[in-house]
Amino acid sequence: MKHQALREQVLEANLEVLRRGLVLYTFGNASGIDRSSGIVAIKPSGVPYEGMQASDIVLVDLEGNVVEGALRPSSDCPTHLELYRAFSQVGGIVHTHSRAATSWAQACCEIPCFGTTHADYFHGPVPVTDLLTQEEIDSGYEHHTGKLIIRAFAGLDPFHTPAVLVAGHAPFCWGKTPADAAHIAVVLEEIAAIALNTLAIDPQAEPLPLRLHDKHFYRKHGPRAYYGQK
Amino acid sequence: MKHQALREQVLEANLEVLRRGLVLYTFGNASGIDRSSGIVAIKPSGVPYEGMQASDIVLVDLEGNVVEGALRPSSDCPTHLELYRAFSQVGGIVHTHSRAATSWAQACCEIPCFGTTHADYFHGPVPVTDLLTQEEIDSGYEHHTGKLIIRAFAGLDPFHTPAVLVAGHAPFCWGKTPADAAHIAVVLEEIAAIALNTLAIDPQAEPLPLRLHDKHFYRKHGPRAYYGQK
Amino acid sequence: MKHQALREQVLEANLEVLRRGLVLYTFGNASGIDRSSGIVAIKPSGVPYEGMQASDIVLVDLEGNVVEGALRPSSDCPTHLELYRAFSQVGGIVHTHSRAATSWAQACCEIPCFGTTHADYFHGPVPVTDLLTQEEIDSGYEHHTGKLIIRAFAGLDPFHTPAVLVAGHAPFCWGKTPADAAHIAVVLEEIAAIALNTLAIDPQAEPLPLRLHDKHFYRKHGPRAYYGQK
Amino acid sequence: MKHQALREQVLEANLEVLRRGLVLYTFGNASGIDRSSGIVAIKPSGVPYEGMQASDIVLVDLEGNVVEGALRPSSDCPTHLELYRAFSQVGGIVHTHSRAATSWAQACCEIPCFGTTHADYFHGPVPVTDLLTQEEIDSGYEHHTGKLIIRAFAGLDPFHTPAVLVAGHAPFCWGKTPADAAHIAVVLEEIAAIALNTLAIDPQAEPLPLRLHDKHFYRKHGPRAYYGQK
Repeated sequence: MKHQALREQVLEANLEVLRRGLVLYTFGNASGIDRSSGIVAIKPSGVPYEGMQASDIVLVDLEGNVVEGALRPSSDCPTHLELYRAFSQVGGIVHTHSRAATSWAQACCEIPCFGTTHADYFHGPVPVTDLLTQEEIDSGYEHHTGKLIIRAFAGLDPFHTPAVLVAGHAPFCWGKTPADAAHIAVVLEEIAAIALNTLAIDPQAEPLPLRLHDKHFYRKHGPRAYYGQK
Repeated sequence: MKHQALREQVLEANLEVLRRGLVLYTFGNASGIDRSSGIVAIKPSGVPYEGMQASDIVLVDLEGNVVEGALRPSSDCPTHLELYRAFSQVGGIVHTHSRAATSWAQACCEIPCFGTTHADYFHGPVPVTDLLTQEEIDSGYEHHTGKLIIRAFAGLDPFHTPAVLVAGHAPFCWGKTPADAAHIAVVLEEIAAIALNTLAIDPQAEPLPLRLHDKHFYRKHGPRAYYGQK
Repeated sequence: MKHQALREQVLEANLEVLRRGLVLYTFGNASGIDRSSGIVAIKPSGVPYEGMQASDIVLVDLEGNVVEGALRPSSDCPTHLELYRAFSQVGGIVHTHSRAATSWAQACCEIPCFGTTHADYFHGPVPVTDLLTQEEIDSGYEHHTGKLIIRAFAGLDPFHTPAVLVAGHAPFCWGKTPADAAHIAVVLEEIAAIALNTLAIDPQAEPLPLRLHDKHFYRKHGPRAYYGQK
Repeated sequence: MKHQALREQVLEANLEVLRRGLVLYTFGNASGIDRSSGIVAIKPSGVPYEGMQASDIVLVDLEGNVVEGALRPSSDCPTHLELYRAFSQVGGIVHTHSRAATSWAQACCEIPCFGTTHADYFHGPVPVTDLLTQEEIDSGYEHHTGKLIIRAFAGLDPFHTPAVLVAGHAPFCWGKTPADAAHIAVVLEEIAAIALNTLAIDPQAEPLPLRLHDKHFYRKHGPRAYYGQK
């Protein structure tokens, strides 16, 4: 079987969001890409996480043709492919309907940066897309969902803001690897829940001042980072 | 023992809502029907889920006569029977008092479709019934609860909206099998929790536009569905 | 060791509230009484639940004298004794600081009956006491907490409303046995959480009409009950 | 390896906040001090809790020089050191981003004492600091975070209020030992969640009257305490 290591990484990212309580039954999907061959490994469509094997992961090329796999790829596959094509450094993508993040997506509200937990991972608010038009839905719903996300990132660095809320739908998260993308999905859910509580305590809560936002983000990211073991 | 397979399916649906945290102690009940014989298998009344066996499941006919079983059927059995008689394609029914869904029922509020998680399972809001009158309570409370639900579904396809909130009480969910009904009960709880959060973020949140609602529902249901493995 | 069966029941009630997530560390306490001898078995003060043994349970008489036990009884013991003296049918008492019920106690708000889950267990709202005066605090805080509860039950049947919220503090629950009291504590926490959500959906939510409240309560309690296995 | 007992205590405090669900991945950190030698043991920076060993714990002196350890100490180490220098009785410090407590920190709101659960552990509200200025951030962010906390404690006894919310960030908690600090972190999270719910039930909820606040605090603390086994 081809791309065994990639399959294992993608399986593991899928299982991580299950273990962390971010997905129910067949909700959500994780994928990863091998940039040298342009092969994407992705969760099969509508298959439960429990009992999933690396051999169930479907391999597709960047145009969406199945390269290897007995199962059909996730119905959201065209969204993943659109993102892999647009964000050339992205190595893994995770989509969930996790409770708090999905609530913000349903409210069509970006998540403001209310604190350092957010600033440790995201520079600026977690953006929310527009709603798709009828025309976009009719001419490739999942493909246009990808385009919508890319439009929302005009002028943004996808690694400074490694997640997005698709309006009326749910989050997509990414990273250099499938494991990074799953990590972002877990942290996003926590940040979304804390932001929700923050508004409940003070509906007029102010975003974190930019000086603290910058400090925390650049403590962990970029050339002057000093968090972690280097 | 008769209808062993049906008993096992009904036991499993009861255990699924326990495992997913939707029921406490003896709360709730799941049932299933064998349409060829008209036999309904249902949880016994007031018996804890822990330690329940397939042999504890009670068999009744569609008039509610016990056909086999040492225990009394769930006190909500007449509601289940009413639904089986009215919705001829339904094969399983699950009733829980799960936290978020019950909160909407207590507020006597339908759950608006705020996003695609909802639209993947329900076409339109999850409806709420009226409150029973004194006369209805006096002449067969559980039986009239079933009638109330059927009244709330005038003009609705029960498979397009496979759940209802009984006002002041809690949800009933259904499907082609007991497992499907339990699956709907789990998803409904999640949708209810996300909808509650959505309102907390924006009390004026708008329902999902119909074009997106239709897209998601028909992506998973009906002749043009393409979600899953066929 | 005396009253081994009672000790085991009290230990088990203490462990049940731990398993159900109602207590942290040394929070809360459960007790039981042997009415024939007037002996009360109660959790020791400030001892963690993990690793607790039946032999750690302290035996006291109804005046609070330790009859057997190397440890000091719960500091809330005088409250338990006051309730055992006043409510002669009560066989077990459980006190927790469970999250949602304590929130209502802190808001000094009774829990309205918003639905049938509540009505299945409590006839009427779960009452809240007054706040203790300085004089009452100075002349036996825990003892006067018991008196406060009894005052709140003037005209109420303690088995129709087997729990109370002590204002600014937390709930006390009771039943015919320690197991019943623990069961009530678990259900009260669920009801309190659902009531909180109900208000979040509709701040003007109305209590359940009395006709439905009565129907559900008397379906499970009293001579015409038909819920359960008799 | 030096200070093996201290390392074990610090490891255990780190694991306790993981077990209790207060930290995700590498979030948070716990430390302890040996006052006789002035050696502080602290979690390494950016290392996951799962699989952490006592040998991973880093030893530093009170000026922050690494005394023993292959890994870099937590990036928050200067904050811990500032607190150990200012609060001479403190033996352990725990920092988390636990959900409810962080929500209060993000709202830049102290946690009012709404009930006895709070009063059992904290005399008065849990204070919130100011926000750091640009100058403070530039001249040693983590060091100035410590100074900020100390400023917020002018006139307060750190053992009467063993936690603080750093505005826009998250809580720091302390105690006589690392285990005590972890215990406070767990209880603070519970208190923060209950306070949040209390406001949801009644946005005008009043703090607990001082007479009850004092009674509960001094029932557990100081020369007249009578809670626990002495």
